[in-house]
This record gives sequence, C-alpha cells and structure tokens, in this order.
Amino acid sequence: MQRIINDPSMVVEDMLKGFAKVHKDIVHVHPDNPRVIISNTAKEKKKVGIVTGGGSGHKPAFIGYAGKNMVDAVAVGEIFSSPTAKSFYDAIVAADQGMGVACLYGNYAGDNMNVKMASMMAEDDDIMVKTVVANDDVASAKKTDSEKRRGVAGEILMWKVGGAKAAQGATLDEVIAASQKAIDHTRSVGVGLGPCTIPANAKPNFKIEEGTMEFGIGHHGEPGIRVEKLASAKEIAKEMHDLIIEDLPFEKGDEVVVLVSGLGATPVMEQYIFFDEIEQLLQADGIVIYKSYVGNYFTSLEMNGITLTMMKVDEELKECIDMEVETMGLTQIGE
Amino acid sequence: MQRIINDPSMVVEDMLKGFAKVHKDIVHVHPDNPRVIISNTAKEKKKVGIVTGGGSGHKPAFIGYAGKNMVDAVAVGEIFSSPTAKSFYDAIVAADQGMGVACLYGNYAGDNMNVKMASMMAEDDDIMVKTVVANDDVASAKKTDSEKRRGVAGEILMWKVGGAKAAQGATLDEVIAASQKAIDHTRSVGVGLGPCTIPANAKPNFKIEEGTMEFGIGHHGEPGIRVEKLASAKEIAKEMHDLIIEDLPFEKGDEVVVLVSGLGATPVMEQYIFFDEIEQLLQADGIVIYKSYVGNYFTSLEMNGITLTMMKVDEELKECIDMEVETMGLTQIGE
Repeated sequence: MQRIINDPSMVVEDMLKGFAKVHKDIVHVHPDNPRVIISNTAKEKKKVGIVTGGGSGHKPAFIGYAGKNMVDAVAVGEIFSSPTAKSFYDAIVAADQGMGVACLYGNYAGDNMNVKMASMMAEDDDIMVKTVVANDDVASAKKTDSEKRRGVAGEILMWKVGGAKAAQGATLDEVIAASQKAIDHTRSVGVGLGPCTIPANAKPNFKIEEGTMEFGIGHHGEPGIRVEKLASAKEIAKEMHDLIIEDLPFEKGDEVVVLVSGLGATPVMEQYIFFDEIEQLLQADGIVIYKSYVGNYFTSLEMNGITLTMMKVDEELKECIDMEVETMGLTQIGE
Repeated sequence: MQRIINDPSMVVEDMLKGFAKVHKDIVHVHPDNPRVIISNTAKEKKKVGIVTGGGSGHKPAFIGYAGKNMVDAVAVGEIFSSPTAKSFYDAIVAADQGMGVACLYGNYAGDNMNVKMASMMAEDDDIMVKTVVANDDVASAKKTDSEKRRGVAGEILMWKVGGAKAAQGATLDEVIAASQKAIDHTRSVGVGLGPCTIPANAKPNFKIEEGTMEFGIGHHGEPGIRVEKLASAKEIAKEMHDLIIEDLPFEKGDEVVVLVSGLGATPVMEQYIFFDEIEQLLQADGIVIYKSYVGNYFTSLEMNGITLTMMKVDEELKECIDMEVETMGLTQIGE
C-alpha cells in the first residue's frame, strides 16, 4: 500500500488536524468533538442551520463544503463509513440558532439511521430538524425504486442551494423545499477504471481488469450496472449522457448545471476532455449549460474514474447557484 | 492504459477545448494559435505582461494560473515537453502592452531554448522581454550547481509574486527583481510512490517498487537522490523538511509560505496528514507559517507522490502573496 500516512487506523484524526490548520480562516473543529467541523460563519447571522456529514475519503466532500453561505457544520465518519449519531447531533446543535436545522445528506443505510437518531436527540432539546436525502445516482436503482438510489456528487449542488437559501433568510420549510427541488432536478452517474484501497485494509476493495470499466460504479466501489470494454472519452460521455438525460428527463430548451468530478486518480486533463464531449452532446440536444464545474469535487480516495452530474435549473436554483461561497472546495471564481 | 481519452496523440488539443469552455469567464484561446491560453484581463489595464509556459500534464499548472493579477498568457506544450518557440512568442505578443514582458518559467533545456528564441523574435518587434528561470528543486542538483536545478511547484509562488507586482504598476525591472527574489527565497523537494503514463506511450515511464519511494523525484519522473523504504508521513515529512531547511537555509524567526502539492493520485487526505507533520516541525524550528496551501496545485498526470515547497517571505513578498487573484488554480478564498 503506497501511502503517505502514519497509523492507518488514525488517518481521519491526522487528516482533520492538518485540514483545520490549513483552513483556519474558514472552519474550526468542534471544541468537544473532534469529528465535527464547523464553519467560522455558522453563527455570523441568524438563519436556518445547514448540516451534512458522511464518511471520509471523499475530499473535498464533505468538510470542504463547510463555509460561508454553504454548510455550517459537518459530521465526519471513518473512511467510507457513516459518522456516529452523536457527531450528527453535535453538528446539529452547533448549527442551530433557533430557526431550525436542515440536514442535507446522502442516501446510505448508516447515515439514514444515525441522522434519524440525531434528529430525535435534537428534538429533545427543542431543535427542529428536517432532512433532505440525496438520491441522484441513477445507476444505483431503477427510477421506480428511486428511494433506494444513493447520493453522490449531486449533493454538492444540494448543499449550495440549501446554503444559499438559508443565507437569504428563508425559513426551514423554504430551505428544505429548495434543497429537495435541487436534488429532485439532479441526476448523476459514475464510471470506474481502477480501484482504491482503504488504508486500514491495505488491499484494494474491488478489482477492475485492465481494458475494462465499471459503468455505474458507486462512490465506495459499489458495483455498477455492467462491466464493459474501456471505451473512448466520446463513447463514455455518450453512454453517461444518455442514461442521465432519459432519467429526469432533461429536454430541449432546459438550462442545466454540469458538474464533472474525477474520483481521485483521474488526471484533470481527462476530465476536460470528457467535459468537451458532454458539451457537444448537450449542444446537439438544445440543452443550455448555465454553469459548469470540472475538477476533483467529490472523490473516492485514489479511485480512477469520473462522475457526471446534471441539475436542471429554474430562476430560484440559478440564484442559489450564483451566490458567492467561501469554502475549501468551492469558491465563486476559479471553481 | 486506463484512461478517459479519445486519440492519445490529441489529448492536449482535446483538453484545451474543454478547459476553454469551462473557464471562459477567466481565459480564452489565442485566435491564431490553439497552444496559447490568454487571460481575459490581459489587456484590462496597462502593465507589464506576465508570460509562462511548459509541458502539459501538470494541471492546474500551467494554464490554470492564467487570470487576473497572475499570468497573462501561457504557452502550452505536449505532455511533459516544452512549448514551441512560436507559442512562447505568440504568448509574449499577446501579453505585451508596451511596458515589456516578464517571462517566468522553469529550468528545463527545451524551455530555455524556446524562450530564448521567442525573446529574440519579440525583440525584433521592439518588445522588451526579460526572464526569471525557476530552479527551486533542491534534489535536482547540488547547491553549488544551483543553475542546473529544475523548476517545480515553487513556480506558482513566483507567478503569484510577479503577477501581483505587475498589477501594482511596477516596471519590468521591478517585476523581474521581485520574481527573482521570490524564487531565490523558495525551495522544493518531491517524493514519488508510484509512476505515471504518458498517453502516447501507453506504458509507465518509470517504475517504483511496492514498499519503496523515490526521494527527490522530478515532475516528469526524473530520478531522485535515492530510493528508500517507504516511510511514515512523519518520517517523510522530516526528511523533506530537513533537506529544504538546510538548503536556503530557513532560520528561527523566519516567516514562510508553505505549499504542499499532491502529484496526481495521492489523496488530498494524505496531503493534510503530511502538512500536519510539517507544521509541527516548523513550530519546533521557531519558523512562522504566514500562509499555507495544500492540494493538487502542480501535478504529474496520475503520479503518486507529494511535493513540499517553502518560500521565505518579507513584507514585499507578503503583499504580493496576499493580492487577490482569479484563476482556475488559485483564488483568494478556499485556496
């Protein structure tokens, strides 16, 4: 295992120490819980609190999206596993200012259970918690079973919309409605070309044969729809585009935000090549790109692969996407 | 070769098309030379022009640092090889506004030759060109042969200083002096844990045995000082820190900018773990971190490894580092 780490069982603790030092202008660690990261602006103005959380190994997700006008507090789990209910609870309390807390997270069994417990604990403290569960990964279940779909990179757009809405002074119900609309209008799919290794395991957690790719792979190497012969960027883009376009469906005249993310080891160069193909396909569709993001926005350690996310935007969503944020993972310029 | 590309011989063209589409708010392609990227602000106000250039495969370097208050025009080479003299010349002409052009680039034979030819061509057009050649990689030659040292991630700090100085309205000589001071005060070193593959070659261009690391590796896999047993983050940080500290030397009471960059496939998590060790070492030295950057700032395709760069700063350099920039690779917040 070729890694720059100390004790493999302490990677999350060690990473968080470095993260908090580098980004001290943006975030700080919860004084009583080292597994909660809090935005320095969390209590700057009275508003609905925005909370998320998830497993580690997805940098910049999740902690990289804490900051002004986006997420107020983040519960941090072990590599690829849910934060505890206590960490979600501590994040909720840290984000609360009496206007309620929107917990916007991804659809995984552990997160669902722990957020539910945390919400009950918070309600005992008279903190109102409402949730939106991201399920943007079209490859993870059929459309008729969309409540079984996993949340992936579309969560970034959900946080951006929810965070902006809260910053605008919206009520908890308004923040929840906008965040739900954001994820309902969003679809994602990923392909994997190479595996990753959880440090404590020391062996890759799945295998992808040279010359093949796993179409529809999940953020933790969950099996996709099929294993295929590795295709060209043009062919991969077409296949991913077709699956997403049909599913919502996106239609001629729609405006969309496009987010292409590498999964870790895929050079950014390849992500631009892939984006160029997507842009050509959308142009042929008559679909207008309102904004595009290309880079390592939601990774899976050193997995080789790419994800495509598209959100159909209306005026409300565009206004939220345009709001300036100050986070490690996203800023207004150069994002 | 597990890559998301089309024709392996066209990756630079295809990448540039995607890059220009995503970042159209920041840059555009030279109308007559697809291998030159120009900042949209290049002619916004009369000032000294800032030019750089280099091989592709190092995203965000080099084109990701084109933008407001940083680099005005970038010549783009093939993967890991110098841009042509013609591209450097076209970049120089694009950046010139009659106050001269500072060409700030890295010390590689091809770049040296092509910048020299481009400067002569520009001088025939009465454009004054002066150069600073980055040589921050301490592992690439002895200190007594420092003119043989390669330029690596320290170039980013050189561009930031030169770009800021030009934006402040300095003369060409002042821009050159500040950029030269920046690189003279900067030292870098890298370690490699895994190779990368140039798309047109289809095979890794060097080999690193499992359980070993190459200490002092270059940005294109140039051999380092020695091959060692893979150590812990703490030990790797100590070894890299010691080499850099002695070389300048950095001393107690100094203020420094620290830049940690992954080489491509190294998860950002590991980069934060590594930074945490560096921060502890510098604290013990009595050296003060003025600003720190951790992320994939200067990569080598999907190489597994990390670089450490430190610049000793005075008031002039601090003022330049603090200036806001708008580029794909660096922004003021979240950088």
